[in-house]
Parts: sequence; structure tokens; C-alpha cells
Amino acid sequence: MRRVDERKINDILSKLTLEEKIAMIHGDGLFETKGVPRLDIPPLRTSDGPMGVRKEFARDCWINICSTDDYVSYLPSNSALASTWNRELAYKTGQVLGAEARGRGKDVILAPGINIKRSPLCGRNFEYMSEDPRLVEEMVVPLIQGIQENDVAACVKHFAANNQETNRLSVDTYMDERTLREIYLPGFKAAIFKGESYTIMGAYNRLYGEFCSHSKYLLTKILREEWGYDGAVISDWGAVHDTKEAAESDLDVEMSIGPDFDNYYMANPLLEAVRNGEIKEEYIDKKVRNILRTMFRLKMLGEERKDRKAGTYNAPEHREMILKCAEESIILLKNEENILPLDKSKVKTLAVIGQNAERLHAGGGGSAEIKALYEISPLLGLKMHLGGNAEIKYAKGYYVPPKEEKKLNWQQDSLDINKEDEALRSGHNDEETVRLQEELLKEAVELAKENENVIIFAGLDHEYDVEGKDRDDLKLPYGQDRLIKEVLKVNPNAIVVVIAGSPVEMRTWADDAKTILWSYYAGMEGGRALAKVIFGDVNPSGKLAESFPRKLTDCPAHSLGEFGDYEKITYNEGVFVGYRYYDTHNIDVEFPFGHGLSYTTFEYSNLKVSVDETGSDDVTVKIQLDVKNTGKVAGAETVQVYVADPVSKVERPVHELKGFEKVHLKPMEIKTVTICLHKDSFGFYDVNEHCFVAEPGEFEIQVGASSRDIRMKEKISLSRKYMYS
Amino acid sequence: MRRVDERKINDILSKLTLEEKIAMIHGDGLFETKGVPRLDIPPLRTSDGPMGVRKEFARDCWINICSTDDYVSYLPSNSALASTWNRELAYKTGQVLGAEARGRGKDVILAPGINIKRSPLCGRNFEYMSEDPRLVEEMVVPLIQGIQENDVAACVKHFAANNQETNRLSVDTYMDERTLREIYLPGFKAAIFKGESYTIMGAYNRLYGEFCSHSKYLLTKILREEWGYDGAVISDWGAVHDTKEAAESDLDVEMSIGPDFDNYYMANPLLEAVRNGEIKEEYIDKKVRNILRTMFRLKMLGEERKDRKAGTYNAPEHREMILKCAEESIILLKNEENILPLDKSKVKTLAVIGQNAERLHAGGGGSAEIKALYEISPLLGLKMHLGGNAEIKYAKGYYVPPKEEKKLNWQQDSLDINKEDEALRSGHNDEETVRLQEELLKEAVELAKENENVIIFAGLDHEYDVEGKDRDDLKLPYGQDRLIKEVLKVNPNAIVVVIAGSPVEMRTWADDAKTILWSYYAGMEGGRALAKVIFGDVNPSGKLAESFPRKLTDCPAHSLGEFGDYEKITYNEGVFVGYRYYDTHNIDVEFPFGHGLSYTTFEYSNLKVSVDETGSDDVTVKIQLDVKNTGKVAGAETVQVYVADPVSKVERPVHELKGFEKVHLKPMEIKTVTICLHKDSFGFYDVNEHCFVAEPGEFEIQVGASSRDIRMKEKISLSRKYMYS
Repeated sequence: MRRVDERKINDILSKLTLEEKIAMIHGDGLFETKGVPRLDIPPLRTSDGPMGVRKEFARDCWINICSTDDYVSYLPSNSALASTWNRELAYKTGQVLGAEARGRGKDVILAPGINIKRSPLCGRNFEYMSEDPRLVEEMVVPLIQGIQENDVAACVKHFAANNQETNRLSVDTYMDERTLREIYLPGFKAAIFKGESYTIMGAYNRLYGEFCSHSKYLLTKILREEWGYDGAVISDWGAVHDTKEAAESDLDVEMSIGPDFDNYYMANPLLEAVRNGEIKEEYIDKKVRNILRTMFRLKMLGEERKDRKAGTYNAPEHREMILKCAEESIILLKNEENILPLDKSKVKTLAVIGQNAERLHAGGGGSAEIKALYEISPLLGLKMHLGGNAEIKYAKGYYVPPKEEKKLNWQQDSLDINKEDEALRSGHNDEETVRLQEELLKEAVELAKENENVIIFAGLDHEYDVEGKDRDDLKLPYGQDRLIKEVLKVNPNAIVVVIAGSPVEMRTWADDAKTILWSYYAGMEGGRALAKVIFGDVNPSGKLAESFPRKLTDCPAHSLGEFGDYEKITYNEGVFVGYRYYDTHNIDVEFPFGHGLSYTTFEYSNLKVSVDETGSDDVTVKIQLDVKNTGKVAGAETVQVYVADPVSKVERPVHELKGFEKVHLKPMEIKTVTICLHKDSFGFYDVNEHCFVAEPGEFEIQVGASSRDIRMKEKISLSRKYMYS
Repeated sequence: MRRVDERKINDILSKLTLEEKIAMIHGDGLFETKGVPRLDIPPLRTSDGPMGVRKEFARDCWINICSTDDYVSYLPSNSALASTWNRELAYKTGQVLGAEARGRGKDVILAPGINIKRSPLCGRNFEYMSEDPRLVEEMVVPLIQGIQENDVAACVKHFAANNQETNRLSVDTYMDERTLREIYLPGFKAAIFKGESYTIMGAYNRLYGEFCSHSKYLLTKILREEWGYDGAVISDWGAVHDTKEAAESDLDVEMSIGPDFDNYYMANPLLEAVRNGEIKEEYIDKKVRNILRTMFRLKMLGEERKDRKAGTYNAPEHREMILKCAEESIILLKNEENILPLDKSKVKTLAVIGQNAERLHAGGGGSAEIKALYEISPLLGLKMHLGGNAEIKYAKGYYVPPKEEKKLNWQQDSLDINKEDEALRSGHNDEETVRLQEELLKEAVELAKENENVIIFAGLDHEYDVEGKDRDDLKLPYGQDRLIKEVLKVNPNAIVVVIAGSPVEMRTWADDAKTILWSYYAGMEGGRALAKVIFGDVNPSGKLAESFPRKLTDCPAHSLGEFGDYEKITYNEGVFVGYRYYDTHNIDVEFPFGHGLSYTTFEYSNLKVSVDETGSDDVTVKIQLDVKNTGKVAGAETVQVYVADPVSKVERPVHELKGFEKVHLKPMEIKTVTICLHKDSFGFYDVNEHCFVAEPGEFEIQVGASSRDIRMKEKISLSRKYMYS
């Protein structure tokens, strides 16, 4: 991390009164702490969130100040970003997010969210990256580096084991230590060690009985002692529950959701406790040191301020990057008979069915909501792309019950689950809704019958992909399954585009559909990107960063583990999350982890694997192969390397992703791809040794296009035992 | 104009039934006619308007269909465009408008509006270009060419003498013929002859007793007979008043505002009259011919359809052009002590005062309203530009009474003047308003006192610059005069930025203000453009395309002529419109026609004028001069050439603009500017000769930076008399 002269920190610390120090360690506004004007210490200004800089709120009230100056660029969600499998795009996305945050005058952007997608039902999965820790590690590091280049702190979140929204404020999470170390912590560790995230956010939930935001185990033992972290730990908003525990923990900043800032746990109650001698001032000093260190890193103090980057927002080049990222995030799940891409010169009429064609998603989801400068819907994208010579006929296809304007903010909702929402969710069974659905269905089926070119835009929205609530099931809402089935009956070539933040069950129609295209919430240019993919101006290259199960009961968190409405929850499935479970137990999935088609085809050949154990305490496994574009259009392929450890003293998944490389190829072009793995790709966490252990013996290197499409394999041997943290 | 094989037209015509023909000549939707599917003749699809393609309405109801697919690029108004004095930008603006219209599937874009700004009070002046016919001619031609490149028809409007909104549906306008020919018609003639506008819109008002939209004088005598126009004449919406008159006139298409399409004057009533023999079918045939000819020009018929341009909208390159146009449209009216540009590196705090800093204007104005993909307000533009290292403190400064959401469309309002609006306009005198104004004023003055860098954003909005209503006076509304005065008292360096669509009285504070910057409604990137000008990233180069009078009673339409609430109105001021009046009668103006400063200075030298009368019936007056950038930054100067005719048999203005050239110069760079004038720059309209006459004798060529800043003069002589139409 950016080195800070500790003498400068101590110098400032020595001048601060206890009151001033306390003021620096808790929210004095919904998104900021108090500064110390006497010593030229500014407040620490934070803002949500992962898809852009959130709208401006009043200092003490969850009301948008409603000016026109907080419109911003709306970035692709982390679920979209991860689907690009493109580290460079993660870096550039970070640059944009950081520039916009700094441009809006922020010091800390409350992103990225990287919790593991344990269950597809988690309401915030759209904000997260993957079910696989290695993919998270690889994408989060450049993302944070890009953000922090702008003299803005990333705040990697939510540390840790925050894998569901149900009871998130209290649920107590249990799992074996190996699972925690192998699955749920690596992303955070990479964010800290390699990404050098200046700040980290403690989660709402408990882990092993302790609230994460002031957990001795997570914050003291792991984060500070093992990982040596000297950045600032910020609580999730309202995640602190006790003055003494918080004060004596390694939390640095308490943020919360109410306007009574002086009575936050780490405000006046703490001041009293220090004055009374119940809590030692040195605890406060430690926190202030971490905050000051972070401020120095951000050039917020002293002479360096003049060199601080100023940032900007809504820059045209930001939108270019956002478009590029959206383009690469789109995943072609299925394309029998090469129905996609459509030929623009031949399409004179296009029938578009389904409300997700016209719905805008930026403004929803909870803290990830964006007051977007604009958002291009798929319907707008298609019309812009086709222009005036083709006719687009649109049918809504399904009925979305109107939602009452929420008067309260999501944070307040999430504390007291919104009954109105619940009513609305179940509301689509009432008589009027059924009638409307039937009408819309009929209209859509007629349209599909009369037209050759049909695209259905189905999926979810932020009523389902939302902070504070998990989904109840995997099914598409609003009667969409039936709509898709009926449309496919009359037009078997209808293209199904699903826009959602998390997997949906497709079983009832997936075999009937010849073409399925998938987009996560892909930001302000999402609709343009979809149009470009649909008409072949962009060749899709996204790959699934999570498995798409056939049904909910197949999911390990549901079949083996516990999920949802528990006060104490146990991750019984252990390390068998996502493909680690499906592939090990041969469970059919709808689409496997790493899957994603292209308008061209790729041939893998000439696999060469070499092992070099001459290093003192590491191994280098060099994997080389040739990838050839054997089709007629340029495209990109993400080559994935999985490692299998057939003999092990612990039960291990049949394989684990350990490396990948995205390669862009012109027609008939061949490129040699080289991927090097080291010891940290071969071990498991040994709870007795208290570290990772790669055992000597045989491993299998698998090279493939998805976790279920392994094209080549080669066995290797490690002659030594490697241990690593 | 694009040549059309008349045999193809006659061939189709011969196959059409009377019913089909009638269907083609009147609205069968609010914005379209009926096609003839039997013969593959599509409907003619029109759309407002001049600042982009208007939102989509239901076929028979003034309700936006409210999808997300009709967001569009929001272009600078014609008032802004004209201020660039840049023909190339007019051309590119046309290209964008045409591409967007075609992209939205339109055949006719109801633009450009080019009526002469006779009085600054006219509510639609923001949609128009200038008080000067030559400037209109020069800008409208490339604008139309740019539009029509996209296989979309321009519809130049409103033909003619539509110079006020008050009683616009009925007012009967009178002026001497010379005035009509010299001032009010040249823009239309250029639009037809040089711009080759495929369609033209008849105005609402009457001229010499006849409704313009079916006037024998305007449409038959001038447009068809004198100008030989073979394009389509479209009525303004609801401007037709009689079946027989309209049918026998040279109007081709009746459009209107009600849903009873079959009972439009040129619908069933006309069908009946033809069947009864009251009206000859040949009148109908002539109209259909003009419509078919237009459709052929637009490649809407037959084989050529496959070659028709498809257009697109919301293209990133459209926004780049829009930004460029906005940048060049901004006018630096005053800059004593070179307060502008501000130095970004030195501005740590910026006080912004006045609601026009944050107001969005796209959605107002009547038919020119735009459902903009986005609009960058000045406050947003400044924040984006400065980024996070500077603090912008904002005070609203003045109170704008809330406006009730209009339930009716402007067209309906305009037919029955909106009483509610009237109440609101006068509403800002009530007690609550006064209290709010005082509070906001106080806050603003405090802010101005405490801060070194202050910018006031004042001006108008589309409550004032609006279709269907004229302003009552020239004054700034909402107490802004007092605000500006009070702010300048406590901070004499405060910069005044005025955003408006038409001139405002500035007398009470213009002398106190050291710096005044002017922007018309400059489109979606207006706020970004202003920020770039304010911080010197763009050197302003706009020049006034209209005079800014000191007070309303100075204006010729008000001091000499009639304006406003008349049923019969006479333009007594004759040709003495704008600077033609002020300069001839030495009336002080606040800022003269052609005025606009730069951050650099320009030196004019080496004027050479030569006269070549060797042509058979024309003269070439070649004017050459050197322009040097004598300052330290690059900039652009618009050199203006005025012609004075000191001795004439009619009373002529002291000078008239006849040529201009915008030249971009680096610091210390010199360029030679050449401007050639021909006979049409020397004559007046001779009502006895029924044509323009340039008399032999002496003329003066004046070269200057505005109509009041003539830098060089040279006398020339014409030895012959020239006559031209």
C-alpha cells in the first residue's frame, strides 16, 4: 500500500483532543464523518456504490437533494463485469468508478461487493462477482487498482460471509474453517494484499457468534494480525451493536442510518466510556491512526493535497468504456441453428416481446441504485441500431403490477421488511392481474405467430434482485415461463434474451428455445450493447461466472446447507459451492460455470504443461496451448484452467478453477496462450496445519471452455509438499 | 431538387381511387397521413421538431406512449445555432437532426423554424434564427441540406409572416410588399431554392386577409408561380379553415390537432364536394402529385426503397456535434478586467447562484419540447468540469412558482389560452412568494459576500420562451433583476450568465456587471459547453444574431409598429427591423447585432475591395482582408460585411449585413479572409418593377466585428443597374 510516514500520523494524533478523535470515528452525516477544521482534517466522505456514485442525500435524512448535478454514469454490475473474464476491463471499470467518485468529491466509494454467490437466491448477488474465489481474486484486484488510481479509496465489502439478505442484520453464520479459508476469504485477501484496498467494510451478519463489523476473529485475528492490514475498517450502515465491543475491536469507523449521530455507539456513549475509564483511549488512537493513514494515502492532508486527482463524471470516454464492458459481459447461452446474429439488411420487421425490453433498472436494487444520466433500454438500443427502415412491433407480453412509490429508504425498509412489497410480490395472482396477463399473453402470441423475427426479453428486475431481501424461488416472475413457452410453440425460432442479476429456472422452456442470450444489469449502455450483439456488430464473449442450476433443490446451499430464515445458519455444504458441488456430484445444470458461446468457434491444440520445482518454496506450472478461431468472424475465447487433485487427505471438488486467459482472435488466427500456476493453485486449507497445504503427488491440469467442456488434460506431479497462507 | 420521373408519378396517380387520394392529403393520425397499402404507398410520417425528434404520441391522442424508446438527442435551438455564424455547424446539425428523424422512422421533420425575429417578445423566437434575412439564408441552406442527406424531408416553417404567438391562429398581418420581400421571405426562398427543402409548412396566421396555409398569394403566386416549387406544402396543425379554399389552394396536406380525422376539411367534406362536382378532382390530383414527388425524393416508393438511408439516434457522435455547436453558440457579451476565463487550478471554492444553474429546459417550449436522453445543467457541467477538489456552493437565488402538471397538450392550450399559466405568471406577487424570494435573495447575497468566485445563472425558461404565448415585457422574471443587482453590490466581480431563448432587459444591472455571458437553449450538452467556456477550455466565439435592445419601447415593432393582441396587425416599421432600425436611428442598444467577444483579440487590416462588372448580368465585389489573432489563446472571429447604399430612391437602412466568414486563428496567426458579394447584396425590392433593383452609383463596403463595430470601410461604385428576383 502507499507508504505513509507514521511520524506525520503521530504528529497529528498528538494534537487531537479526545472529542476530536471520537468525532472522526463515527458518522456525522449519513455518508460522512466529522473533520477537524482546526487542524485542517476534512471529513471522510463516502458514497455508495458499486454501479456508480449514488445520488446525493441530505446530511441527515434519506432524501435526495434533487438537484440536477448528481446524475452519473451507470456502470455494469459486478455480475456483468465478472462475466467478461477480462482483467483489463475490470481495471478500466475501476478507473471510471474512481474518477466519478472523485469527481463527485468522494473519498471512499463503497465498492466493490465481492461476496461469494453461495445461493442463487441472494438478493444482492447482482452486486457480486462469482461463486468461484479465484475468479473473484483475479477480477477484484485490477478493479480496486483502477478505482484507487484516482485518489479515492475502494471499500471492499461485505467482510465476511454475508451471503444472504434474509435476516442479514442478525443472522449468525457457521461453517468449518476450511470452507471459510478456501471459499469465503480469498477474494478479500486478494483485495487487501494485491489490490491494496485502502478500506474494507464489515458485514451486517454475525460469524461464529460475533457481529462481523466488530468481530475479534475476522477483524483482529485475520485482517489485522494475519493479513497485517493497516487501512480503515468501516462498518456497514447500522452494523455496530455495542460501544465497548466496537471500541475495543479493530473497527475504525461506525456508520449508521439514523440522524442521531451523536448517539451512535462510537459517539457520545464512547466518549463517556473513555472519560469514565471504562475504555482505554489507546483503542481510539488506533482507529484514528488508521483513518489518518488512509487520509494520507488519499492525499487528503497537508501539502500533498495539491497533487490529489480531481476526477470527473459523465465523461464521454466513461460511456465508451461502459459500453465495451457491457458488450463483453453478454453471454450467449445457446444458439442452435445459428439464429443469432440477425442480419440487419434482411430484418424488415422485428417483433419484440416482454417488458424487460423497455424497463429501466438503474434506479433500483437498494444502495446500488443509480441516478443515471441515462439508460438505454433494449428496445431503444434495437431501434437506434435498426433505424427507420425496419419496423419494430412491441408487445409487453407480461404484466408487472405497479409499485407504490416508496416513501422510505431501502435501509429503513430492510430493517422492517416492507409488507407492501410482499403483498405486491404475491399480488400477481389476483383476478385483475390474471386477466391482464391473459390479454398480454394473447397479444404476444399473436405477434409471435405473425412475425418471423421474434425476440423475447424476459428476466428479473430490482423487485427481485434487491438489497435486503432474497428471492423465494428460482422461477421467473410475472408469468414469464408460460409466455416464453407459448411464444416458442408458435414461433420455435424466437430468441430468448434474459436480463437478470441472478440465475433463473429455465427448465420448462430451455430445451424448446434454440437461442438464449443472457445479460446481467449491464449499465447505461446495456441496451445498445445487446443490439450490437443481436445484430453481430459485437461477437459475444461473456462466460458464466456462476453455475445456472436446473432447479433450486439442486443447489448445495439448499440441498445440503441452510439458507434463508434462520437466526443461526450453517453452511453444511462446506467448500462444495457452485460447480465444485455440481461437477463433483454429477448434478445436471442448465448451463455450467464458465459457459458462453460465440458466433465463431475455437479449436484448442498443442497443450504443453511443464513443472518447475527448482524454486526454494514454490512451483511454477507452465501451461501452453494454441487456440485457433476456426470460424468466419473475429471473436474472443476465455480459456479456463482447472486443477484436479485426485488423491488428497481431505475430500476435494473434482476440479477447481485456477487460471484463465481471454484471447481475441481474427478468423483463422492462432494464438498461443500461456498460463502459469503456482503453489497456491494446488492446496487445500489444512485446519491442523493452520495454513494451505499442497500435497506432493499427482494433479491433473484441465484446459477447457467451461467447467463441463474440458478440451484437454494432462497429468503432472509435485514432488514436494508446499505450505502457504 | 432531386429529379423525379413524372411518368412514375402519373402512373401511380392513375391507379388511385378518389378515396385513396383524399386519404393521402390529410392527417389520419396526429402526425401522419394514410398510406395506400394496395399500391405499397406508405403513410407520410411527420414529427416535430427543430431541437430533435419529439416524443412518440398515440395516433389519435396527445398522450406520450411512454415507452423508453423515444428518448433522443437534444439539439441546440436555432437561436443558438445562428449565434455560431458557422455554416459548417449548421450543416452538421442538420445531419444529426435528419439522422435522428430517419432513425425514428420519420419522413418529414417539422424544422427548421426561420421566422424573422421582429419583436423580442415573440414566444417562439428561441426556435428561430435571426432578425436578419441574410444570416437566415446562409444558415438555413446547409441546415436543410444536412437534414435531407438522410432521406428525410425538412419542412421549413412557418410560411410566412408568423412573427408573434398572440392570436396566432387568426391574426391578420399587413405590411408593404417591399418589407415582405426584403425581410420576411428571403429565408424561405433560400430554403426552397438553395436548400431544396422538400416540404414547407404554411403558417397559422393570415396575411393580407388570407389564411397562410391556404393563401393564394403566398402559396400560388409566390411559392408555386414565382419560385416554381414542386414540393409538398403542409399546413400547420389546425391551420386549415375551409374545405373549398384549401382544396383549390396550393396546400397539399392538411394536418390538425383533433382525432376526428375523417372530418378534417380535406377529408370527407372534400370527398363529398368532389363527388358533388363542387370541387374539381384535378385539384386533388395536383396535391397527390406533390406528395408522391416528395415520396420519390425520399425513396419511399418502388425499388429505391432499398437504398433509403436508415438513420440512427442517440449516437455518441451526435452528442459530440451537439457539444461543439453548443460551445460555438455561447456569446461573451462583456468581459471587463478579463474576469473570464476562470483558472481551474486556482478556484477552490465557487459560489453558484440562480436556479437556471440547475434547471432543465428540454421538456418545455411547446412542439419544440424534447424527451432528451439527458440534459447537462450548468451546475452539473461545472461540477463535472471541476471535479472533487473544488467546492461548489449553490444558492437558488430566486423562487420559481411550481407549475401544475399540464393535462392538455400545448396545441389545445394554445387554442384556448391557459388561464392557469396566466395566474402563475402573475402569481409571483403573492405573499408567500415574496417571503420565499426574500429568503432566497438573502441567502444568495450572503454567499456572494463570502466567496471570491461567484457566477449568477439567470434568464428565462419555457414558461416564457414558449409556443402559443408571447412575453408581456422584456424583463427578467422571478425577481432576478434585483437578485443580480444585490449580488453585484456585494461582489462586483460576480459573473452573470444568462440562459434564455430571447433578449431580456439588462439595463438595471448591465453597467454594474463586469462580465456577462449569454447562452440560448443549447441542447443536451449545454451545461458542459458553458463550463468549458467559463474555464477557458473553449474560447467563446458566438455572436449575436439579433440586437439586444435596452428597453421594449426602443423596439421598432413596438415603437412604430403593432404587436400583440390585434386581430389585424400592421408592420408599420417596414424593413426597419432589428439593427436596420437601431443603427439607422442611432438608438442605443444593450448589445448590438453581430456582437460577441473572445478571450483573445483580433486585428483587421489590409482591406482590399475590387469590383468586377464584366459578367453579363451580375457583379462580383471581392472583399479581402487580413485578420490577426493578437492575443495569447486560439480563438475564432466572425468577420461581418455590411453594405450601405447612401443614395437610393427608397429609404434604406444605414447598412445591411450581406456577408460573413468565421475564421479560426491560433495566437499571432494571420489569415486572409475573402468574401464575395453579388448583385443580390446591393438591391432593394422595387414595388413598381416587381423585382429587386440594385441602382448604379456609390455603395460603402463596411467590414466589422458587429453592426456597431465597423473596423474598415471602402467605397465602391456600380456602373450599371441590376435587377433580380
